[in-house]
Amino acid sequence: MNIDMIRAANRRLEGHVRRTPLLNSPFIDEIAGRRVWVKPECLQHTGSFKFRGAWAALSAMDPDTRAKGVIAFSSGNHAQGVALAAKLHGVPSVIVMPEDSPRLKINNTRAIGAEVVLYDRATEDRDAIGTRIGAEQGLTLVKPYDEPEVIAGQGSVGLEIAQQAADLGITKAEVIVCCGGGGLTSGIALALEADAPGLRVRPAEPEGFDDVARSLRSGGIERNKTMTGSICDAIISPQPGDITFPILKRLVGPGLVISDAEALQAMAHAFNRLKVVAEPGGAAALAAALFRKDEIKGDDVIVTISGGNVDADMFARALETLS
Amino acid sequence: MNIDMIRAANRRLEGHVRRTPLLNSPFIDEIAGRRVWVKPECLQHTGSFKFRGAWAALSAMDPDTRAKGVIAFSSGNHAQGVALAAKLHGVPSVIVMPEDSPRLKINNTRAIGAEVVLYDRATEDRDAIGTRIGAEQGLTLVKPYDEPEVIAGQGSVGLEIAQQAADLGITKAEVIVCCGGGGLTSGIALALEADAPGLRVRPAEPEGFDDVARSLRSGGIERNKTMTGSICDAIISPQPGDITFPILKRLVGPGLVISDAEALQAMAHAFNRLKVVAEPGGAAALAAALFRKDEIKGDDVIVTISGGNVDADMFARALETLS
Repeated sequence: MNIDMIRAANRRLEGHVRRTPLLNSPFIDEIAGRRVWVKPECLQHTGSFKFRGAWAALSAMDPDTRAKGVIAFSSGNHAQGVALAAKLHGVPSVIVMPEDSPRLKINNTRAIGAEVVLYDRATEDRDAIGTRIGAEQGLTLVKPYDEPEVIAGQGSVGLEIAQQAADLGITKAEVIVCCGGGGLTSGIALALEADAPGLRVRPAEPEGFDDVARSLRSGGIERNKTMTGSICDAIISPQPGDITFPILKRLVGPGLVISDAEALQAMAHAFNRLKVVAEPGGAAALAAALFRKDEIKGDDVIVTISGGNVDADMFARALETLS
Repeated sequence: MNIDMIRAANRRLEGHVRRTPLLNSPFIDEIAGRRVWVKPECLQHTGSFKFRGAWAALSAMDPDTRAKGVIAFSSGNHAQGVALAAKLHGVPSVIVMPEDSPRLKINNTRAIGAEVVLYDRATEDRDAIGTRIGAEQGLTLVKPYDEPEVIAGQGSVGLEIAQQAADLGITKAEVIVCCGGGGLTSGIALALEADAPGLRVRPAEPEGFDDVARSLRSGGIERNKTMTGSICDAIISPQPGDITFPILKRLVGPGLVISDAEALQAMAHAFNRLKVVAEPGGAAALAAALFRKDEIKGDDVIVTISGGNVDADMFARALETLS
């Protein structure tokens, strides 16, 4: 896993992914106490950065292997990313999803053309299910984060941030990334190490699901006690990956931890000030910039909004925080 | 008023406005029965395209005149655009706003630093109020649409659309534009006439406030009967402008008329599929693409989302259309 793989993936993504802008608002800067630059990957195809990694993985596969189809397990964003990348490559896909995933994500994944298999997040092991079905049907598993080509694809976000920060004259800043298994976080960290060494990544996670923050503190991989109970479904994973964690350990700063209530407030600010739709997990980094300002250094902070796939009733809850 | 003014304004906007992307979604294409490309000017500074015209107008002014300050009358989006352009030029601004404008727009305009003067949309004449205060304080009036430099600034949206359509290989399409007084619509029409003659503009308006559609049919300027009663506040104006109408008459196709309920549904689809926040008036063009498909020709349609400054309770109403 290295920067050359990220640059190669970035070239394969050319013309297929959206190059998302950096947004800002003086109203958000005021709350955060510094300038906040927002990378809205909710505007990416399928509504999250996951399409980048999925495209990178499928485009790197041997054509004969790819033609047999792919399988993925995901709470929804990786699901949609893989489903669309498979559709655009003209190959079948099977997606294994927790049965408590947001309805929107399940419906979208089906509508894109994937076969969706649901499982119980509390009692069943998604890796085991994915591996079994994949073997039965000759499908290649596209892991959500612990997979070099997927990390390389997500790293393209970091290449864009490096360029956009340079265009703004920003040479030193913290870059807060919504962090589940660490694919986006490690990809961005590797890209910034190469192209913008003054930019340091900080992972953002929800309270009670701060496996990465705890792992960074202890120096070894720590697991979450449970997989249910947060509205930030997009960034809940059991533990940092075997490939992602060493990268995180080497390159990123201490984790930032936010509450579900703060994620909802950040969604409301993104609605009100940036005019973009963030899902709870996708708003974790913005929430950290807004509500953990004493734990952040410098005049500029860059945050990802990693996804926007949220049901209307959850979004209505976020809007209520404005009144 | 000509293309050279638009190109000159576009150069002055460089580095100051956001170049908004073109978004799309297979789900929206399916409803519309053709490919729909969305230009989300809700992502522009201040949440609407109006900042373009405001910046163009202020940057074209004689510096001594500009230093005395500017005045504008607006339901909210032009207000914020002028207030921010004035602030960034370091000059004072007074904004005359209807007292029934969305609270968000009034609050934002004040927060940006403008002095806000409220008036009654049903009984008072905003032009008269603006002219009087401007004369008293030596301020220059920045009209919302019937002003060549403002039209030139809005026309930059058309230059971007021409380039983006060319990049997509689209040489023939209808371009539906949310239309109030016709500043954005005429600016885009002039830009496309020069740079993408196969693209034809269609204005979109709310039912009962279709002064432009009726004026295009009759060939002369027609007024709206009332100025209140639509949720599409951003695109309600008494009649097409003296400068904008001849341009519209020469260049644009028949007007498209949508209902408030359809605007709300279009907002919901923009939330669900594009992850952007549209205000009711800003969703009129998307509503036309979704719900007036028999009145539109061709495989591709391009629509503007002209703004996203909507209060949370109105947005919640839009979300309810999804259930």
